[in-house]
Amino acid sequence: MLNCRFGGMQLSVKTDTDAYLIAPQPGLARLTRAVVGRDHLGTETTINVVEERPLTIFLNAQEIVTAMTIGDYPEYLALGFLRNQGMLRDGEDITSVDYDEELEVVIVRTARKTDYEDKMRKKTRTSGCAVGTVFGDMMEGLEGVSLPSTPLRTSWIYDLSAQINRTPSLYLEAGAIHGTVLCQGNRPLVYMEDVGRHNAVDKIAGWMLSEKVSAEDKILYTTGRLTSEMVIKTAMMGIPALVSRSGFTAWGVEIAQQVGLTLIGRMKGKRFICLAGEDRLIRDADPDQIRDEPKRSGRKGSA
Amino acid sequence: MLNCRFGGMQLSVKTDTDAYLIAPQPGLARLTRAVVGRDHLGTETTINVVEERPLTIFLNAQEIVTAMTIGDYPEYLALGFLRNQGMLRDGEDITSVDYDEELEVVIVRTARKTDYEDKMRKKTRTSGCAVGTVFGDMMEGLEGVSLPSTPLRTSWIYDLSAQINRTPSLYLEAGAIHGTVLCQGNRPLVYMEDVGRHNAVDKIAGWMLSEKVSAEDKILYTTGRLTSEMVIKTAMMGIPALVSRSGFTAWGVEIAQQVGLTLIGRMKGKRFICLAGEDRLIRDADPDQIRDEPKRSGRKGSA
Repeated sequence: MLNCRFGGMQLSVKTDTDAYLIAPQPGLARLTRAVVGRDHLGTETTINVVEERPLTIFLNAQEIVTAMTIGDYPEYLALGFLRNQGMLRDGEDITSVDYDEELEVVIVRTARKTDYEDKMRKKTRTSGCAVGTVFGDMMEGLEGVSLPSTPLRTSWIYDLSAQINRTPSLYLEAGAIHGTVLCQGNRPLVYMEDVGRHNAVDKIAGWMLSEKVSAEDKILYTTGRLTSEMVIKTAMMGIPALVSRSGFTAWGVEIAQQVGLTLIGRMKGKRFICLAGEDRLIRDADPDQIRDEPKRSGRKGSA
Repeated sequence: MLNCRFGGMQLSVKTDTDAYLIAPQPGLARLTRAVVGRDHLGTETTINVVEERPLTIFLNAQEIVTAMTIGDYPEYLALGFLRNQGMLRDGEDITSVDYDEELEVVIVRTARKTDYEDKMRKKTRTSGCAVGTVFGDMMEGLEGVSLPSTPLRTSWIYDLSAQINRTPSLYLEAGAIHGTVLCQGNRPLVYMEDVGRHNAVDKIAGWMLSEKVSAEDKILYTTGRLTSEMVIKTAMMGIPALVSRSGFTAWGVEIAQQVGLTLIGRMKGKRFICLAGEDRLIRDADPDQIRDEPKRSGRKGSA
């Protein structure tokens, strides 16, 4: 247990994973591989590195895409990807989601005939660490989006940040991976990790779709940058607040301001910067009472 | 000037950008935007954030993709992307590369009719911070690749790492951006940055193609993770060594071992780990003589 003071109020910050509905599984053997190499001294060294597997997503009879993923929650990834691409509508009648581990394929079937042909006509590469592509007009669907004015307490985001940074994760185990966490108030609910940050977000979207979880009182926390794609995905999911340890891009900020998303970045220890949706923020925590992060937390803001 | 000792040998490490053929341009107004927000104290704060612009790439009459990029070197980005996708062959007769800043379009024209239809039939999402897609079979073209046995001195990579980390860059100016540097011996030649790491690599590939630069004696340095995509791009470019501050993925390591690429990661201060192509490494530097990075360098290993 770690204790943080928020404006006189004493909050206990859980460091165990019991608070989560879904927590990272750093111990799961199939998510990492031990690789032998040599360090700077020439000494043979064995390190754990994260897996990266292909997963081909079908919507009905149509092959949509092959994702590179660590391979956990393939059904959530497929559902969330299709939902965030606008290929699955609100209240879509999803008749089945079948995962074949051997073929590395997920098939999502819907009652109605889907309109993927239109979606796949236009490809847009998005920012990030890999060739990025979204299908259809990136901004499509955003016109309709109106995000609820749910208040966001700074005591919550300090509390969330402290809990998430101390949660055992693949990042702390093997590095080279992104984390995204769905939160409610000061409680982290679902912590997804993946080699692609977009996959982590899509897995959360897939979980929300499967579990019919409402978005208006949620907060999305990510270890990665606040690019246009992340802002658009969050807004499309109907989540009013996006918080990150990392930095911003100008277009990400612009879109957040347009759709009224609360955008908080560079959040480390007591520090953060809010570049959009300030009106939602309730500054109930005294930053001077927040401890700086211990160096050993090992967490970095990541590009 | 910073002095580092390499096994008794005194090397001077330039911190100016004169050594580069192409250096970052953190001062260039159109690459960043000043955005006003509020910090953790509620104080109004203005920060510089990197731009993110669409760039649509055409190959002859065919629209291939729209990239999100900071917007420098659009011609190199287009050429490098098409080359790394295998859409431009060795010795391809490129008749013109036209950039229209207003339309945010680059059109690459070739003498022969290109075969993009086949390439675009299969889409693969790659790892990273954005929805990732490469066209065609990711491994296609790798069978033929044989990388030269050019030696790689550890004194070079220590020297390169020190120079690159101290080079004025958009990363140090605004953060939230990736850097990739083409190097020769202990000299960094071309330092490209972009919101997408894949763009930074593609811009270097485009420059090499335009300038007809040979690859066999080059080293590629990146701030980002060593994923399958980065390893494949480096091998496709014919560069025998890839060095990063960041971590690995299992498939990235596997491919590097298959194609005989020297893969060095987690390089910070004196430390690094070599997980493939150890045979190319000449350990001529004494790690104990290498200073650890000053905290203020601000560089992070990034996911």
